Amino acid sequence: MTSTSTFVSLSLAQSLAEGAATVAFALSGLIEAARKRLDAVGVVVVAGLAAFGGGTLRDILLDRRPFFWVQQAEWLWALLALCVAAMLFMRARHFAITERAMQWPDAVGLGLFCAGGTQIALAASMPALVAVLMGLVTATFGGVLRDIVCNEVPRAFSDHRPYALCAFAGGWATVGLVAAGAADNVAMLGGAALATLLRVAALLADYRLPSWQPGAEE
Amino acid sequence: MTSTSTFVSLSLAQSLAEGAATVAFALSGLIEAARKRLDAVGVVVVAGLAAFGGGTLRDILLDRRPFFWVQQAEWLWALLALCVAAMLFMRARHFAITERAMQWPDAVGLGLFCAGGTQIALAASMPALVAVLMGLVTATFGGVLRDIVCNEVPRAFSDHRPYALCAFAGGWATVGLVAAGAADNVAMLGGAALATLLRVAALLADYRLPSWQPGAEE
Amino acid sequence: MTSTSTFVSLSLAQSLAEGAATVAFALSGLIEAARKRLDAVGVVVVAGLAAFGGGTLRDILLDRRPFFWVQQAEWLWALLALCVAAMLFMRARHFAITERAMQWPDAVGLGLFCAGGTQIALAASMPALVAVLMGLVTATFGGVLRDIVCNEVPRAFSDHRPYALCAFAGGWATVGLVAAGAADNVAMLGGAALATLLRVAALLADYRLPSWQPGAEE
Repeated sequence: MTSTSTFVSLSLAQSLAEGAATVAFALSGLIEAARKRLDAVGVVVVAGLAAFGGGTLRDILLDRRPFFWVQQAEWLWALLALCVAAMLFMRARHFAITERAMQWPDAVGLGLFCAGGTQIALAASMPALVAVLMGLVTATFGGVLRDIVCNEVPRAFSDHRPYALCAFAGGWATVGLVAAGAADNVAMLGGAALATLLRVAALLADYRLPSWQPGAEE
Repeated sequence: MTSTSTFVSLSLAQSLAEGAATVAFALSGLIEAARKRLDAVGVVVVAGLAAFGGGTLRDILLDRRPFFWVQQAEWLWALLALCVAAMLFMRARHFAITERAMQWPDAVGLGLFCAGGTQIALAASMPALVAVLMGLVTATFGGVLRDIVCNEVPRAFSDHRPYALCAFAGGWATVGLVAAGAADNVAMLGGAALATLLRVAALLADYRLPSWQPGAEE
Repeated sequence: MTSTSTFVSLSLAQSLAEGAATVAFALSGLIEAARKRLDAVGVVVVAGLAAFGGGTLRDILLDRRPFFWVQQAEWLWALLALCVAAMLFMRARHFAITERAMQWPDAVGLGLFCAGGTQIALAASMPALVAVLMGLVTATFGGVLRDIVCNEVPRAFSDHRPYALCAFAGGWATVGLVAAGAADNVAMLGGAALATLLRVAALLADYRLPSWQPGAEE
């Protein structure tokens, strides 16, 4: 009984965390689309790519169907509602504040989605490195697709901040925990916690990757 | 007898309309590629993406095979022939005229492909909103891929003209007609007609979407 | 016995050629990423797209799984090792030399991957033109994805050099040899040799495609 109710509240907490993270991802797309002066259709599409693009690309690569936004089309309605609300109430001066506030649920999403994607790939019998790669795709390629559609070099590849690297570490933690025989929930939360904590630490320390700029050429 | 011959001529009319629309889509890619000074290979690829990219992406998302251009490879030959003819006979001063003339078959294609894509997704048991989204992808993502390869922000997301919105309305009309028990042909043509008429009306009225530009930021 | 050992050494030669070609593809991504000042993550991702993107896209279009980099995850480890080594030891002044040196294994890869991709598509019962197209995707879309992520117009579509055209010719040679009843190995090597030789000839002659620039418009 206790264990059931713990499990229930854990999975409720996880759903809430995933929801908050998805909102953070969607808002990153929404703000980038607004900055690029896209129209309403562009705002919705870019927000949707940022929120759902990573998991969708992972499912295409793993040949999994239905996509989660097909199984639970409420997610798409929620995205539409979020975009409409933002277009009605959000002003440009809210952008920077929103982005700063969204760093934290975004870090939570980085953890949850990389660990979750890694686990899904392991369940599909992928080798360890491929599973970690799938976790990384889940967590980061929504943002990559967002930036490609907005005609920018993807921030995840060019801002010299540890983002995908945190997901990489979290994915390996999940693989290690699964290999060590940990329960699914533990492997998931362990990997997610590691990635999120690394990301939060990097944000707090304002850490920058040493860049590989091997001398000026041109 | 009458009904059969009506059906035959209807489906002939539909084939002709689809052919004209596909040519309009391909020419949009061809002209954009020429403006960006792509070489012959780039012209053919971008024209092909504009013409066939939307339906192909829909089929990847729905996990449908074979693609229609695999089942009927004549379409690919026709595309090659169109590109070669254009490269031989088209001059830059024809571009603006061609684009203006192509607005009308393009509007027909917007209708046919959004309604057709919606119907295909409904037949694959997708929920209503997902089906409409698939119709929208069919009708508009050829142009999106064309613009991404040409290194532009997709016009469908940034020109503040109702394009995807017309497809959205047409898709919902198809969903409504199917839910109301209409015959396949009726649901298809009803949705297509609505989307096309909305697009034609928007073109004639030179209508612009109210833009969401929430104050200058930078 | 002789024929077996010939076969073995042939397939060893093929493996070596494929390995060298894949390194050439990966280095093209690595150098482009470095020039765009991407961070370490971006360098690895772009190198990986350049090396494996074409074959992966072909497999998505043909609905083939597992991807070869899933079946042989060593390829991914090798890519990581290559990127780390390059980041440690490569300097900007090596870029131009490396690019010039890589033209030759790249031409070999163009041949091997277009002929191999064509053959895989024929084995999946694709019509001839579609099979050639799949060969072309295999050989050239790694570079296309590399350039899209780096926010450039794909070089394969805009540098007015015969690259995809050589793959096109090689693909048709493979189709012709298969139709004429040639052994798999012969069809593969014939198509690969034609594409590679055409590319090498074009490089040596510094040949440029006649461009389609139909008068200045703007």
